[in-house]
Amino acid sequence: MTSGSHVSLRRDLHRKPEPAWCEFYTTARLVETLSELDLTALHVGPDALAADHRMGLPDEDELSAWYDRAAASDVDEEILESLEGGHTGAVAVLEQGPGPTVGLRVDIDALPRPESDDPAHVPAAEGFRSEHEGAMHACGHDAHATIGIGVLEAIRESDFSGTLKVFFQPAEEVVGGGKSMAKSEHIDDVDYLLAMHVGLDHPTGEVVAGVEGFLAVVHLEATFTGESAHAGGHPEQGRNANQALATAVQNLYGIPRHAGGATRINAGVIEGGSAANVIPEESRLVAEVRGETTELMRYMDEKARNVLRSAAEMHDCELEVETGAEAPSAHSDDELVSIVADAAGGVKGVDSILERDELGGSEDATFLMREVQRNGGLACYVGVGTDHPGGHHTATFDVDEESIGHGIDVLTGAIERIGHERP
Amino acid sequence: MTSGSHVSLRRDLHRKPEPAWCEFYTTARLVETLSELDLTALHVGPDALAADHRMGLPDEDELSAWYDRAAASDVDEEILESLEGGHTGAVAVLEQGPGPTVGLRVDIDALPRPESDDPAHVPAAEGFRSEHEGAMHACGHDAHATIGIGVLEAIRESDFSGTLKVFFQPAEEVVGGGKSMAKSEHIDDVDYLLAMHVGLDHPTGEVVAGVEGFLAVVHLEATFTGESAHAGGHPEQGRNANQALATAVQNLYGIPRHAGGATRINAGVIEGGSAANVIPEESRLVAEVRGETTELMRYMDEKARNVLRSAAEMHDCELEVETGAEAPSAHSDDELVSIVADAAGGVKGVDSILERDELGGSEDATFLMREVQRNGGLACYVGVGTDHPGGHHTATFDVDEESIGHGIDVLTGAIERIGHERP
Amino acid sequence: MTSGSHVSLRRDLHRKPEPAWCEFYTTARLVETLSELDLTALHVGPDALAADHRMGLPDEDELSAWYDRAAASDVDEEILESLEGGHTGAVAVLEQGPGPTVGLRVDIDALPRPESDDPAHVPAAEGFRSEHEGAMHACGHDAHATIGIGVLEAIRESDFSGTLKVFFQPAEEVVGGGKSMAKSEHIDDVDYLLAMHVGLDHPTGEVVAGVEGFLAVVHLEATFTGESAHAGGHPEQGRNANQALATAVQNLYGIPRHAGGATRINAGVIEGGSAANVIPEESRLVAEVRGETTELMRYMDEKARNVLRSAAEMHDCELEVETGAEAPSAHSDDELVSIVADAAGGVKGVDSILERDELGGSEDATFLMREVQRNGGLACYVGVGTDHPGGHHTATFDVDEESIGHGIDVLTGAIERIGHERP
Amino acid sequence: MTSGSHVSLRRDLHRKPEPAWCEFYTTARLVETLSELDLTALHVGPDALAADHRMGLPDEDELSAWYDRAAASDVDEEILESLEGGHTGAVAVLEQGPGPTVGLRVDIDALPRPESDDPAHVPAAEGFRSEHEGAMHACGHDAHATIGIGVLEAIRESDFSGTLKVFFQPAEEVVGGGKSMAKSEHIDDVDYLLAMHVGLDHPTGEVVAGVEGFLAVVHLEATFTGESAHAGGHPEQGRNANQALATAVQNLYGIPRHAGGATRINAGVIEGGSAANVIPEESRLVAEVRGETTELMRYMDEKARNVLRSAAEMHDCELEVETGAEAPSAHSDDELVSIVADAAGGVKGVDSILERDELGGSEDATFLMREVQRNGGLACYVGVGTDHPGGHHTATFDVDEESIGHGIDVLTGAIERIGHERP
Repeated sequence: MTSGSHVSLRRDLHRKPEPAWCEFYTTARLVETLSELDLTALHVGPDALAADHRMGLPDEDELSAWYDRAAASDVDEEILESLEGGHTGAVAVLEQGPGPTVGLRVDIDALPRPESDDPAHVPAAEGFRSEHEGAMHACGHDAHATIGIGVLEAIRESDFSGTLKVFFQPAEEVVGGGKSMAKSEHIDDVDYLLAMHVGLDHPTGEVVAGVEGFLAVVHLEATFTGESAHAGGHPEQGRNANQALATAVQNLYGIPRHAGGATRINAGVIEGGSAANVIPEESRLVAEVRGETTELMRYMDEKARNVLRSAAEMHDCELEVETGAEAPSAHSDDELVSIVADAAGGVKGVDSILERDELGGSEDATFLMREVQRNGGLACYVGVGTDHPGGHHTATFDVDEESIGHGIDVLTGAIERIGHERP
Repeated sequence: MTSGSHVSLRRDLHRKPEPAWCEFYTTARLVETLSELDLTALHVGPDALAADHRMGLPDEDELSAWYDRAAASDVDEEILESLEGGHTGAVAVLEQGPGPTVGLRVDIDALPRPESDDPAHVPAAEGFRSEHEGAMHACGHDAHATIGIGVLEAIRESDFSGTLKVFFQPAEEVVGGGKSMAKSEHIDDVDYLLAMHVGLDHPTGEVVAGVEGFLAVVHLEATFTGESAHAGGHPEQGRNANQALATAVQNLYGIPRHAGGATRINAGVIEGGSAANVIPEESRLVAEVRGETTELMRYMDEKARNVLRSAAEMHDCELEVETGAEAPSAHSDDELVSIVADAAGGVKGVDSILERDELGGSEDATFLMREVQRNGGLACYVGVGTDHPGGHHTATFDVDEESIGHGIDVLTGAIERIGHERP
Repeated sequence: MTSGSHVSLRRDLHRKPEPAWCEFYTTARLVETLSELDLTALHVGPDALAADHRMGLPDEDELSAWYDRAAASDVDEEILESLEGGHTGAVAVLEQGPGPTVGLRVDIDALPRPESDDPAHVPAAEGFRSEHEGAMHACGHDAHATIGIGVLEAIRESDFSGTLKVFFQPAEEVVGGGKSMAKSEHIDDVDYLLAMHVGLDHPTGEVVAGVEGFLAVVHLEATFTGESAHAGGHPEQGRNANQALATAVQNLYGIPRHAGGATRINAGVIEGGSAANVIPEESRLVAEVRGETTELMRYMDEKARNVLRSAAEMHDCELEVETGAEAPSAHSDDELVSIVADAAGGVKGVDSILERDELGGSEDATFLMREVQRNGGLACYVGVGTDHPGGHHTATFDVDEESIGHGIDVLTGAIERIGHERP
Repeated sequence: MTSGSHVSLRRDLHRKPEPAWCEFYTTARLVETLSELDLTALHVGPDALAADHRMGLPDEDELSAWYDRAAASDVDEEILESLEGGHTGAVAVLEQGPGPTVGLRVDIDALPRPESDDPAHVPAAEGFRSEHEGAMHACGHDAHATIGIGVLEAIRESDFSGTLKVFFQPAEEVVGGGKSMAKSEHIDDVDYLLAMHVGLDHPTGEVVAGVEGFLAVVHLEATFTGESAHAGGHPEQGRNANQALATAVQNLYGIPRHAGGATRINAGVIEGGSAANVIPEESRLVAEVRGETTELMRYMDEKARNVLRSAAEMHDCELEVETGAEAPSAHSDDELVSIVADAAGGVKGVDSILERDELGGSEDATFLMREVQRNGGLACYVGVGTDHPGGHHTATFDVDEESIGHGIDVLTGAIERIGHERP
């Protein structure tokens, strides 16, 4: 594939963003592309991951709706069928002689948010803006998936001796897919794991060899159930689920900061009530808390649950809290960081290399990193700079496509170096 | 039509509840039934009301979705087409000799709320529970529409001399349809207007000849627009629309009570944000305020707008407030109240007659009542008791079908008395 | 006493406002004045009321501080000593031949709020503004006490046959004194009870013969106890009592309005924390709830306690709620209302007489009214209009002194009529 | 002075805690003690600091009350008079031959918070608990002042050649005194500045040679002015200052965390309203915001002001915000840190030496440190561990008196080393 076809693949994926566990088109398209490479093995559907460990799976209606949308496109029907029920993602294996097993993890899902249609937004201007209203590749996973393909192609052409496994992971945005890939057998023999992300406020041409500062995270979904009543005729007969939720939101954001390190709280999604003239009987809140360490995340989690519980009691509502997906923190190993930095030094267009930098966000690649480290291997999370006009997760996020090549080259270089140095 | 077919009509309507301006099936079904009566005139579609004065119209997507649903049923296609774009409702005219023109207004819309599937809930037990998930006849308008038909039938059989006009009004629940019917030419020559409601906490067998205490009401739809950001990576870059909304809700309910009379506030519908890990950039609130007088409603309205504005400023969000539908207060004229009370006295099954009682809710029948009174006519709002297990607007509301006959008889009796007394 | 000396007495009292149970100067001054009248009996100190039923008593420090202030004035030391410990108030008895026993209840306490020093405020302009910073006669009880004296004087000069008892009641503003007077033996033989208030938004020259609409009320004092911590060094170690209080205040005002009638809530006094850099460990809230009926007050009370409890739990604070003073609702008897209206008709300067009007506030005169009614007697609460520039309880409230004479004349006339009509 | 007299001095100061700018007894007592040493100069009263730069000065009433309390003790009257009006603090100068000028800054004020009377609390058990109800040495400044004296004594006995200036600084707790000492001429010739603090979660025997991580801080005092009204009679006429404050508190704590570093917010002191039955017309909030850098503090400050402004608008209140004291961040110079670490190595009882640690709080010693550094000198902030049962600023904070000796020895050792190394 030429660099032109990389751009074209990325744009194709960008046009069809799919949220967590609904990456039907995306997976099918990637599998089609992978089939053209001469791979040793390609694990798709239930074979790709440990299905029982999938977290944050949407309900069947949503899965079906996205599946149907993919089915209406031109992707291979047979591939698609193997993904039904949210068995998205794939693991590609390239055995190329004796040597170490290197894993590369790239994520492939999009966000459930609308994309800007401002003409200044390149995807809008150049015709590859999201065709799925309310969904958007606002975090660059379209580029990640493309880089995964590009590295496979490049390694196949190289003299790398060893095995390369590329994990095309679904559902990173809900930190829901990492664990199921970490629990699959495919990770067991991985000696070196590389994961990567574009952007992160680093410009095109800059590479962070070892990203640190992953925040541990957990998602909470709270449902307040009160009682409806006629808002004019008998307001006192209601038990107001929207009031409970508003009280909760106000106090969630008020959980005390912690001297032990960074914490985060977000009441990301709210909805409640049925009509202006009905005291709202049910409301729902999707929130997440994070911490610089797992302990700090637990501190936030415990406080948040207390807020939710008390807000429900205050308005005589019942409360159900479902714990959604979660991810631990992790760290990049020095030895791999050096190898990546060294590789980056040889890549054209890369003019700034940072050994380390903080992420300040969360990632479920940490599940895979910790698993490999637990097995005695090494792991490293690489940042590939890209000029992005809007911030991550915003309507005007975009990737400078030049950085796709940087990502492929830096990771290929690192894998080659691993092959040379370790028999 | 026998009383059995009244029950069957009511249950048919109950099965297919449709919210404001989406009463496509309902209107078509009523028009089919009306066509079988030998009426003088039947105004349907844009002819039924002053389309420019429709308030609280949903967006095109919602109109289409409900239209398509109705089109998939067995109703007359031609009738349906005349209703497209939210031109629901109908005005039936029966001229029967010289005499006064009497108007009867019944409303026909349902509520956007789920219906109970508890076996103790009669519609669930007897198989006429809502087939439209998320919509429900939770206020008895299915009975109202049926009573409108029944009165037309009964008057046609009676020796009433004069003209009867029945206004099948859409969109009462959003107080959105009354004004457009009050502004149509059909109301101009009405000398006496009767409006009616079942239930209102009065048991089967009780009639309130003149309902008072309509609360003036206005709906507000507020949209907070902030800015999204990665909730882990850069929370400080967001402008949080959910926080703005939560602050608003807390303070809306805290608007001071007024010594001048009853006031109401409800933040009935909320929604905001896109994902747990994105600082929410947009949220929406549908609220209503009410007052015992229009002044009190204005007091609440003004305070509410100030709360919304300040909540937006507090979280650096932009705010747009759309004023939704509104309705004034109104009163029932003594003379008509006496006639209704007299008529109720002669109805079998009616064992308790109250001259006056308070509604404590809002109604856009007030637009029609005030218009008729402004033209020198008389108006009266009649309450027809019905045992209802759950309160109005709740999941277990239901109508005791015996009261349908009471409603028909009381109103028919009143219309006949009007015909006799006034040439 | 001439009308000039009434003005002078009222201004003297105005200059020395004393809050509930601290009316040391006020009581002593009144007792001095009463001693000059030739009364049958004068009950002062613990004899004046049932001390165990005093509600809302301040702590000893505050009692002492006000006592000392009174002791530093020129009032009779012996009288003062009999009041020590908050035994304020007095009952004056004038037996004047056979006939009914008529009670007149006037209250004497002031409010703990600063008085305006605006030159447009008459007490400021004419030199009788409060000398006690932070206390003010902002509800006209200085005029009430004066009227009590005036009626005694006038009845003594009249041919009234029977017994007149004037209850100079302390601590009305905290609804704390009424019960203790209602529980004393002095009320037992009262056949007719009159109570009165100036102002209430009625202008000088207007009299309301029978005031209705007393709101039942209860005071709540809540203390939140958390845990302090260094706000910079260890914010997470605190349990924040100010956050708990703020959450409570927001949600107290959000208790749903009730369709059954008027309700009220006020978080009147708040305080908490010790320093900017210490997580606040204790906060205190003095609130009151009211209802048009005792049931409605109980509805508010129950909701309020739930809000307080949940707010404490939300911020891991302990909560103590002390129930302060409370008062029931009451009604004025028709028979007495007619007598008062008749009497008012004969008073010079009174040009508007309303039979009935709503108070919309609370009063612990209701304890005495209900006690007399329970014993088979009649009770009536009279409103005496007075032009007041600011509203009751505000910094610019003032009494038009002309209305003092109206009050004396209306009440004297009513008592005389009672004497004539009932042997 | 023996170590026994150090304990006795510390306990004497502990017994008489005085808040910021009210350290009348404390200063006088220190000056008495200093007078017995043979010092070169002793600057007291307006000579000790730049009076115009004092921040966070209390009002005259509070100053007088504390002054009177000190005057009632046995301290020297003449010294006391020189402190009147809040001119507390002192600068002691000891010239001892040629050599560098070393400054040592210790702070002397207490906190406005009650002290525990639990028998498990040593000051309570051993009879030196605060005699000033509502004030407490809850941060160890009693030990700091004692250490300042101890170092002067020790240096006088040593062969140190150079000049030692000890800054006994008032008003650290309101970050109000540091600037005025930094702006005085006494700092101008200081070549090396040492500042110190006991505790900070480090146990007895541990020394932090260079404390880092000072949070920049600013205090805000907000006054909300609304309008009072009778809470029962006319709640709608009020403009509720307590509601405004509660809204502000809820939203202040909800200011978004910042990815750029630690931030803090505390609504430390609240008060408002006058009585349960009056809509509260005025309320007051004393808050502080902090940031790891001055920029982060400004971020919080700006957000906080917006919250305050919007909360006032929401409840139709006027707002006044006074900016209180503030302090920047600062850092300890490596060269001095090494000297301190070296000195600590030679001190008996010190068994753990940390080169660096984070404070996580704020300090206005930073004003002096930055001034010395600006003039080309070096500065270092030293932590002297002490076992403290309760956290800083809590009711059970206490100092392990053994650490007083450690503090004296470490600082004396450092000053001697400075004298030797730099001519």
